[in-house]
Amino acid sequence: MKTRAAVAFEAKKPLEIVEVDLEGPKVGEVLVEIKATGICHTDAYTLDGFDSEGIFPSILGHEGAGIVREIGPGVTSVKPGDHVIPLYTPECRQCKSCLSRKTNLCTAIRATQGKGVMPDGTSRFSYKGKPIYHYMGCSTFSNFTVLPEIAVAKIREDAPFDKSCYIGCGVTTGVGAVVNTAKVEPGDNVIVFGLGGIGLNVIQGAKMAGADKIIGVDINDSKEEWGKRFGMTHFVNPKKVTGDIVPHLVGLTDGGADYTFDCTGNTTVMRQALEACHRGWGTSIIIGVAEAGKEIATRPFQLVTGRNWRGTAFGGARGRTDVPKIVDWYMNGKIQIDPMITHVLKLEEINKGFDLMHEGKSIRSVVVF
Amino acid sequence: MKTRAAVAFEAKKPLEIVEVDLEGPKVGEVLVEIKATGICHTDAYTLDGFDSEGIFPSILGHEGAGIVREIGPGVTSVKPGDHVIPLYTPECRQCKSCLSRKTNLCTAIRATQGKGVMPDGTSRFSYKGKPIYHYMGCSTFSNFTVLPEIAVAKIREDAPFDKSCYIGCGVTTGVGAVVNTAKVEPGDNVIVFGLGGIGLNVIQGAKMAGADKIIGVDINDSKEEWGKRFGMTHFVNPKKVTGDIVPHLVGLTDGGADYTFDCTGNTTVMRQALEACHRGWGTSIIIGVAEAGKEIATRPFQLVTGRNWRGTAFGGARGRTDVPKIVDWYMNGKIQIDPMITHVLKLEEINKGFDLMHEGKSIRSVVVF
Repeated sequence: MKTRAAVAFEAKKPLEIVEVDLEGPKVGEVLVEIKATGICHTDAYTLDGFDSEGIFPSILGHEGAGIVREIGPGVTSVKPGDHVIPLYTPECRQCKSCLSRKTNLCTAIRATQGKGVMPDGTSRFSYKGKPIYHYMGCSTFSNFTVLPEIAVAKIREDAPFDKSCYIGCGVTTGVGAVVNTAKVEPGDNVIVFGLGGIGLNVIQGAKMAGADKIIGVDINDSKEEWGKRFGMTHFVNPKKVTGDIVPHLVGLTDGGADYTFDCTGNTTVMRQALEACHRGWGTSIIIGVAEAGKEIATRPFQLVTGRNWRGTAFGGARGRTDVPKIVDWYMNGKIQIDPMITHVLKLEEINKGFDLMHEGKSIRSVVVF
Repeated sequence: MKTRAAVAFEAKKPLEIVEVDLEGPKVGEVLVEIKATGICHTDAYTLDGFDSEGIFPSILGHEGAGIVREIGPGVTSVKPGDHVIPLYTPECRQCKSCLSRKTNLCTAIRATQGKGVMPDGTSRFSYKGKPIYHYMGCSTFSNFTVLPEIAVAKIREDAPFDKSCYIGCGVTTGVGAVVNTAKVEPGDNVIVFGLGGIGLNVIQGAKMAGADKIIGVDINDSKEEWGKRFGMTHFVNPKKVTGDIVPHLVGLTDGGADYTFDCTGNTTVMRQALEACHRGWGTSIIIGVAEAGKEIATRPFQLVTGRNWRGTAFGGARGRTDVPKIVDWYMNGKIQIDPMITHVLKLEEINKGFDLMHEGKSIRSVVVF
């Protein structure tokens, strides 16, 4: 079949909207009509050439929502008409990782996904007879895409696509880091470094979990209003703090936070986030993706005296199990998404979405098909 | 009263055996007759001048066992005749840390303990009219010492002092790191870096907890026999491995260990210990004390993909609660101590104990009074 898609022919060039060829689903695969997709920093990271493992030409996008239109042989968990969210972290429920119940990092199709192909080693997309590669196993910048059955989460049909697509990455990453990775409890004090989309979702996750102090840290004062909208109780601009930010935050939290979250990707901030944790039990969780080659460091004394350094990917969520729950939380009003969708664009405007992100003018831009 | 003690008059000098003056216990304090004391690396670290906060003249020693001989006003939890182990990490059961139930790092007397004095700000020891400072709140290199009530663990009376004293630091640090901090479960794979006394105690803790593979790593081949004696299943000498030690260990453990323990104090090894953990859930626990100023580092990707970096002090043990249990485990044969006590010395021979340690000839030297 043919489908309209925004193709990244090479790094550091705008996406081009073209008609590409798409093969139908093979064994264990499904064809999904994407109805809406968010534009995430990770897409920009790849498009801007920062990802040394980025593959071109490819169809980017990994934060979508849509409807199953066709299923390949052997598919049993979804049927045509089902509403789904594509999962860049699949959930096979059969690999060592899935069976461990200790991690969401399913390894069933990791090798091929990283190479931009489906589990059989080939791409379903092509343009003028040449293959176009998949991206993060999703390629949601295409009106139709093919996904492994284990990489779609079936969701309720009354959830609006232009909002629920954000659950495919940003919402789940932030809220899930609080709920699945940290397991924040009522009364805990939390510090969130970086109040972009992920940081705001951490804030609303912490609020939902019953945290006491929810301190937002950002060098941009305009983020204070955003943070408060989602449950932030205190705002700190490090540029306006005299001296070191760490003792300031430790003072605000009676000895340090129970949980801190780095949503900046800055390794210096990651260290501050660890050291702002409470002696004895405070846990710092790295969400942000650091520049290639950058390292985190601290004195081992920080760990020996009881601080814990951890990380999270896709909010620790088991996609097929947890993503439908987060959709319910949104539909039931436990978390908000609507105010975060600052721009709704047509596919033809997708490059504008990247511009808005680079200029810091959007929380989340969503493309609707 | 007078008591015989080994006094550290200054750094980098041998201890001197002299008669010192000891004031009796004040409110909330107890007088303990020390019957035996281990000589630990931390004592040597201070005596050798590496601890920038080391205070002299002082009476070192923090790994002892003895008998309560007198109690000060208000003491209710122990009485004269009780057998006790002094606790350099006390357990007040009333501070924020104790009440959190999340850490063993009681803060009740931390400030004064760090200054070498009792909670009232003064020392009980003196020599020729000048104060001699306490060390780690214990000063077990003295035949008699005074301790806060919250800093003694009451133990069973049939435990031999020359063995149970080792539970005052080394045994609890190693076994406790496994049981209290890591909470190793049956079937877990464990890697232990550094097979000195702490490493051997981690090994026997892992064996007691039912671990499957217990891999010991040491650059000294003579440690293989020691490790096997306590439950080690595999030995790796990094000097004899071709290439990087990390992929070698990851291969031995089908993707990495569930838990790794650094017992070396070497920050390069600490990084290897983290990176030898299993993706998704592996946890590395730092036990070793690093040189002043040294830092640990890794790529944040290691944490984002699910490895956890933690530390432990005094094996995560709440002294008054957990130390008596470990004494029971020893007396019931669940853990061994006798083979680790390689040398028994008189107080006059204490400097020989330090020499044996520096020369790597002892696992543990114990001084008996």
